[in-house]
Amino acid sequence: MSEQFDAVDVIVAKRDGRRLTDAQIDWVLDAYTRGVVADEQMSALAMAILLNGMDRAEIARWTGAMIASGERLDFSGLSHPTADKHSTGGVGDKITLPLAPLVAVFGVAVPQLSGRGLGHTGGTLDKLESIPGWRAALSNDEMMRQLEDVGAVICAAGSGLAPADRKLYALRDVTGTVEAIPLIASSIMSKKIAEGTGSLVLDVKVGSGAFMKDVERAGELARTMVELGTDAGVRTVALLTDMSVPLGLTAGNALEVRESVEVLAGGGPQDVVELTVALAREMLDAAGRPDADPAAALADGRAMDVWRRMIAAQGGDPDAELPVAREQEQVLAEHDGVLTALDAYAVGVAAWRLGAGRARKEDPVQAGAGVEIHARPGDRVRAGQPLLTLHTDTPERFARAREALEGGVVVDAHGAAGERRPLVLDRVAAH
Amino acid sequence: MSEQFDAVDVIVAKRDGRRLTDAQIDWVLDAYTRGVVADEQMSALAMAILLNGMDRAEIARWTGAMIASGERLDFSGLSHPTADKHSTGGVGDKITLPLAPLVAVFGVAVPQLSGRGLGHTGGTLDKLESIPGWRAALSNDEMMRQLEDVGAVICAAGSGLAPADRKLYALRDVTGTVEAIPLIASSIMSKKIAEGTGSLVLDVKVGSGAFMKDVERAGELARTMVELGTDAGVRTVALLTDMSVPLGLTAGNALEVRESVEVLAGGGPQDVVELTVALAREMLDAAGRPDADPAAALADGRAMDVWRRMIAAQGGDPDAELPVAREQEQVLAEHDGVLTALDAYAVGVAAWRLGAGRARKEDPVQAGAGVEIHARPGDRVRAGQPLLTLHTDTPERFARAREALEGGVVVDAHGAAGERRPLVLDRVAAH
Repeated sequence: MSEQFDAVDVIVAKRDGRRLTDAQIDWVLDAYTRGVVADEQMSALAMAILLNGMDRAEIARWTGAMIASGERLDFSGLSHPTADKHSTGGVGDKITLPLAPLVAVFGVAVPQLSGRGLGHTGGTLDKLESIPGWRAALSNDEMMRQLEDVGAVICAAGSGLAPADRKLYALRDVTGTVEAIPLIASSIMSKKIAEGTGSLVLDVKVGSGAFMKDVERAGELARTMVELGTDAGVRTVALLTDMSVPLGLTAGNALEVRESVEVLAGGGPQDVVELTVALAREMLDAAGRPDADPAAALADGRAMDVWRRMIAAQGGDPDAELPVAREQEQVLAEHDGVLTALDAYAVGVAAWRLGAGRARKEDPVQAGAGVEIHARPGDRVRAGQPLLTLHTDTPERFARAREALEGGVVVDAHGAAGERRPLVLDRVAAH
Repeated sequence: MSEQFDAVDVIVAKRDGRRLTDAQIDWVLDAYTRGVVADEQMSALAMAILLNGMDRAEIARWTGAMIASGERLDFSGLSHPTADKHSTGGVGDKITLPLAPLVAVFGVAVPQLSGRGLGHTGGTLDKLESIPGWRAALSNDEMMRQLEDVGAVICAAGSGLAPADRKLYALRDVTGTVEAIPLIASSIMSKKIAEGTGSLVLDVKVGSGAFMKDVERAGELARTMVELGTDAGVRTVALLTDMSVPLGLTAGNALEVRESVEVLAGGGPQDVVELTVALAREMLDAAGRPDADPAAALADGRAMDVWRRMIAAQGGDPDAELPVAREQEQVLAEHDGVLTALDAYAVGVAAWRLGAGRARKEDPVQAGAGVEIHARPGDRVRAGQPLLTLHTDTPERFARAREALEGGVVVDAHGAAGERRPLVLDRVAAH
């Protein structure tokens, strides 16, 4: 009976629509980390939070308590300001790869602590691991040295940051409580604040391939995270960006690295370039470099130079051949018309089933697997023209990947060739 | 992947306010009983049910699935109709003791499967176990034989009835999900329907000493249970009865047995007699004996005869001296006035702390411990007059029992001696 609170009282307070006190929040997250509050109690609390909400001060305290459960990094010894980017995850979202070196061109250090993929969205570390020799795990010292020397690092987040979040996230995943905005926002922001970045740009994805399917909820999540960052002294801005179609023309690990290198070489798909530059402008602005011209640094090879040094610093060979899947199959247009749908979720699931993603944390991924896209919504296509190429090392996977695409790839004989929808839907900044 | 459903999908359906399908309900309770659905998943589902509700058909299916998790009893071989009573629990609620033999007088068999107390309300089995020699555990055969020969049996519910309910109840207790009406109703009714009684009278308690504090929610619970019973073919009626003050003049195990015997002898407190007769009328009515006169059978000793045979059939000695606690202390009126409050919850907690109840399932209870009441709300009292006598074997408990009574026992110098509030507040029957 030396515990300060009883878990049932905390659950009942939120269940009955009351605010949790600071002391209740601090206790329940600490006690959960210590194993005194049981999983079945925390899941009931998470469901009550999902259904009854938390206010701004509660969310801030909850985030602070998750940060307090672990270590904090400190970049204040660096000679550069720091800026970080976080994406809520989408299909074909390889933006971190060109973005981190691009921002570093301008003397802003980018500490990009990343994760692996689970489900239909790929993970940044999985993508980079398709580069021969590259390693994701760095010590804090190695990370600091690379930030000072190269200016950009993309590596695995250590297990010391916000351990309460890691435990809670695994629980939410199996209890139908992932979709609570206070819990999503505090999960993301606890790690970013603990990481110690000076400024942060959030890419909040909206659409079928994203976690948030509608723009209202995405906006609410963005506002919540911007408030949390601002309250914690991190200059934070969010862009709401479209994820109803895949980003770029590839979804898969080595496929996306190849496309990122094209962008760094001054080419690549227009939407990937546009979003990379838009996010770079926000990061540079927040880090005190509003004068910088990131589009020029992509075009003239300066970003590519930093990329090569960043990959090499982590043991990767920037000139190595990237892995190619053993088997390919094409998806063809069945008749003439206009491609009216190329659903991000369908393509994401297809890439996942081809071997690019994993169903469980311990599953391996195939470096070469994924989907290549040959036509974009609004394009006129002819019967027999390839729309997609599917890549895998294990051809028995083709059938289930095609199933995932059914209804998601539509050629309408009477459709009108049309405009693309805008990529950046909204911008959320602190008042 | 041989499971029919995924637990997260079922949780998300209820979380998002959708109906659960029959197949989802059947699966989730079966899978929970098998351990395939984890505690943390079931607690999230329970919270979603608490906050989003279930409709009549869902609750009926949920109840049916809990019944299907275990065995069913069958009283159809008996030569008598059967009637059972269930109380949602209150302070001083010893009604089962005189009621079961009283109803049996008229040839209606009463199979009263009961439980032990937890928290501030006592358990029927704990009370009867204060009678030397009496045993609660009977085999199904022994129970059937006693029902045929004596007509009444009060014994422990076997563990074979609705095992899903037992597991779920323990989970709800620690996750703040006890108060969901669909879960309370299905928990009670699954056991009563599985028990196989032909008719059932529910005593739904309302007030500080009860689970339901207000009459609206108690009415909703009563209607839900009457619907469940009726849909399952059990003639079911509910009375809503007052539990803002303790029932009768005792709370405690042997103390309540002694009071019950007074009632069976034609005396005893007026409220205990009134409620015993009211419930007996409902049970006899539901079992096809609307002509019976239970008040007469209390007054002329016929109910006492059945009581003595019922106790003796389970090894008890109806003539044995009942245990008396080793120590007594009185609570005195501090000044002249009117007793305006004698709060049921306060008295229940005091009796519990004196040793009459248990905090954990495995705790022992004291047979003699409890509270004796000498004045009822509305009574004029004089300074120094005893209001209560506290009984315990362990005098160090007196101080905490008195603490529980603070604010719950009020003598108002300017209060007006008044009417008692009615005992039976409402009656709920099938349409």
